[in-house]
Amino acid sequence: MKNYITLILAGLVVVLAAVLIGVMVYIQNQPAEVRAVQPLVEIAAMEPDSAQWGINHPNQYDTLMKTATNNVDTTYGGSSAFSWLERDPRQVILFAGMPFSKDYNDDRGHANALDDVNETKRLNLNVDDPKRTPGTCYSCKSSSNPGLWKELGMEAYDAMSFVELGPRVTEPIGCANCHEAETMRLIVTNPALEEAFERQGKDWTTFTRQEMRTVVCANCHVEYYFKGDGKYLTFPWDMGMKVEQMIVYYEEAGFSDWVYPETDTPMLKAQHPEFEFFTAGSTHYEAGVSCADCHMPYVREGASKYSTHDVHSPLLNPEEACGQCHTNTEYVVERVAIIQQQVADTKISAEDAIIDAMNAIKAAAAAANADPALLDEARKLHREAQFMWDFISAENSTGFHNPEYALEVLAKSTNLARQAQMLAAQSVNDSSLLATGTFYENK
Amino acid sequence: MKNYITLILAGLVVVLAAVLIGVMVYIQNQPAEVRAVQPLVEIAAMEPDSAQWGINHPNQYDTLMKTATNNVDTTYGGSSAFSWLERDPRQVILFAGMPFSKDYNDDRGHANALDDVNETKRLNLNVDDPKRTPGTCYSCKSSSNPGLWKELGMEAYDAMSFVELGPRVTEPIGCANCHEAETMRLIVTNPALEEAFERQGKDWTTFTRQEMRTVVCANCHVEYYFKGDGKYLTFPWDMGMKVEQMIVYYEEAGFSDWVYPETDTPMLKAQHPEFEFFTAGSTHYEAGVSCADCHMPYVREGASKYSTHDVHSPLLNPEEACGQCHTNTEYVVERVAIIQQQVADTKISAEDAIIDAMNAIKAAAAAANADPALLDEARKLHREAQFMWDFISAENSTGFHNPEYALEVLAKSTNLARQAQMLAAQSVNDSSLLATGTFYENK
Repeated sequence: MKNYITLILAGLVVVLAAVLIGVMVYIQNQPAEVRAVQPLVEIAAMEPDSAQWGINHPNQYDTLMKTATNNVDTTYGGSSAFSWLERDPRQVILFAGMPFSKDYNDDRGHANALDDVNETKRLNLNVDDPKRTPGTCYSCKSSSNPGLWKELGMEAYDAMSFVELGPRVTEPIGCANCHEAETMRLIVTNPALEEAFERQGKDWTTFTRQEMRTVVCANCHVEYYFKGDGKYLTFPWDMGMKVEQMIVYYEEAGFSDWVYPETDTPMLKAQHPEFEFFTAGSTHYEAGVSCADCHMPYVREGASKYSTHDVHSPLLNPEEACGQCHTNTEYVVERVAIIQQQVADTKISAEDAIIDAMNAIKAAAAAANADPALLDEARKLHREAQFMWDFISAENSTGFHNPEYALEVLAKSTNLARQAQMLAAQSVNDSSLLATGTFYENK
Repeated sequence: MKNYITLILAGLVVVLAAVLIGVMVYIQNQPAEVRAVQPLVEIAAMEPDSAQWGINHPNQYDTLMKTATNNVDTTYGGSSAFSWLERDPRQVILFAGMPFSKDYNDDRGHANALDDVNETKRLNLNVDDPKRTPGTCYSCKSSSNPGLWKELGMEAYDAMSFVELGPRVTEPIGCANCHEAETMRLIVTNPALEEAFERQGKDWTTFTRQEMRTVVCANCHVEYYFKGDGKYLTFPWDMGMKVEQMIVYYEEAGFSDWVYPETDTPMLKAQHPEFEFFTAGSTHYEAGVSCADCHMPYVREGASKYSTHDVHSPLLNPEEACGQCHTNTEYVVERVAIIQQQVADTKISAEDAIIDAMNAIKAAAAAANADPALLDEARKLHREAQFMWDFISAENSTGFHNPEYALEVLAKSTNLARQAQMLAAQSVNDSSLLATGTFYENK
């Protein structure tokens, strides 16, 4: 009898041990943010300091910190702060009359966002009138924001000037921009995003985790504008999120970012519409792929598996990024190269067409006899052509996030630019305004 | 001892039986053309009658015969003989002055090719001068061709008129167009294809079987022209196989298909450049996919597996066609729909731009004072814009065979067409030629 009991007890021990090992293996295989149900330290809600969060999530924090120095370039983009104005001098002309024509560097990693916005000459160009630059410019640059938006409200935040708000904004982009401290779940933190969804009848809290792995990027990687005198951060999504629909929105809102010198065109500047561009029917988005799948792939560090927070171009780590789905990453990288070259070439053609249009409109506007209706129509097409081009140009993938849409939009942009040029010539009945290649002639 | 021998013999029998079964299973799993090492009947070299080949390869023959009646349409194409001129009346204008403006029906299945070429009004338009239509027009329409090319030589074949050659051309497209009778291997049968490869320094006999599953389609599905007075069938590939390179080739050859009425533009008509378009860096081609993989997928009929010869759009059997590689065919079909709509829309914009250019050039050409150099430059761009558009329009996939290249080429076409219009206006210094939407106005 005693032997039986010993046997039963021994059996129980073996079963328990097996269950325990199973659970440990299971936990080990979970993403780190799921594993960390028992934090080492308690993180305050909207804690701006990512180092605090890093105590509980060292791998994620360590990789986030790599974005401070991951300044490697790809063929068409990357994470160094190269000058777009030097690389493509057409952009000096395209952005004439506004700060992007003076200082337009490619963006560096997340950890540099605050330094870069504080140092850009675009804002320092306004030092003669520090109040002119609104605090809204900090909206995408800092993990201090969620706390500040909570404390001040976005309306008051946006009403402050850049110099007033500056001392309150102390941290670069970090954990609090995408995570809820208590649960680590992915959340919308930018009130402008929440409000844009609400106006579309969408409630982000109903989205799946996989959807949120794209949506949190829209906290910043979107087209936006500063609405009204309060410079209220607003996403122009009410008509839809395609560039054609944004143009209708801005037209109805009567909004322009600046007036182009000499042509007198009310212009629009595109920001970084990665979210809208990627979700506009791209093959990867339609296949259920999220931003994080490619830009924050799961990696292994010893025995732990986690989503890297060293966000950069997947072309720099294709095995980890593309290799999660694609077996032949060499092939995939070649595909990207072909597509990006097609988009880059077509983009330059669109720029040349827009510059020809600008020069024609300038000449027509300077003439005394221009037909005002035709000239205004030329300006309207100039505005649309340039915003379409800029939507693709400012978007950070040289078209790859949605190749067919990129090329479709650039084809439209070029067509509109040529029509703008023709209208300008018609407005003064002067066919000498139809010269092409005027960028090269005037250089 | 006797027992041992019995055991060894029994073992041998088992092993032999296993080997036999293995070989049978192996043979069963081979494509039919590999299995048929022992033909039931001997097929004469270049036998025109596919029914003869069908005795040995009944599944392939039965499916080939289905192309006689597979007249099902997709959104943008398909296998019925719908009229392009009715569907898109712009094409009546775009092809004015040549037979395609009178009769331009979509192509039906392979088995109808001969009937359709004999009945098209394009050739019957020439009945007043039957010698005007060359025999070369039969080159892609019949399995009688390999034997005729062998017997007559392609030079003599092409020198005959359509009516002279007609009685010799008795079979529609069939087995002899792609297969060698003795071995069933895939071969180049069209001398023009062999010669085009030779001029590129390529020897098709060194290609792999998978490569040949695309190359045999190039026996017909290519851009070609009739060279010189002998109407010698020639592929314009010497500078390369992209449309931009073909334009350089045709320019140097001083070739044009017809002269556009009133504009006096020497024009080029694109044929069906599926091979060049697909192989110009498309994602499927670069991934090693052949034409036959999608258009002639392996199917099962009872216990046998064979490549279907009922060639048509994969959109009509996506499970068989796309499902060989893609697990989610519903997703794939949706992707095709998005891409084809983008291409179709951009194609129409290009057509509108070309028609605007045509009308401007017509007006300039009719004026007495046009600057001849500017007007000629306008014609050159008109020629290039229209050939680029036609290369995408005549190609039978609404861009899907190579989506990015389709959109890149259409963007270029539109840009060139607008520049042609501007040059025409400049040539007579008359900005009233810059009207847009002239297709709608003149309808």
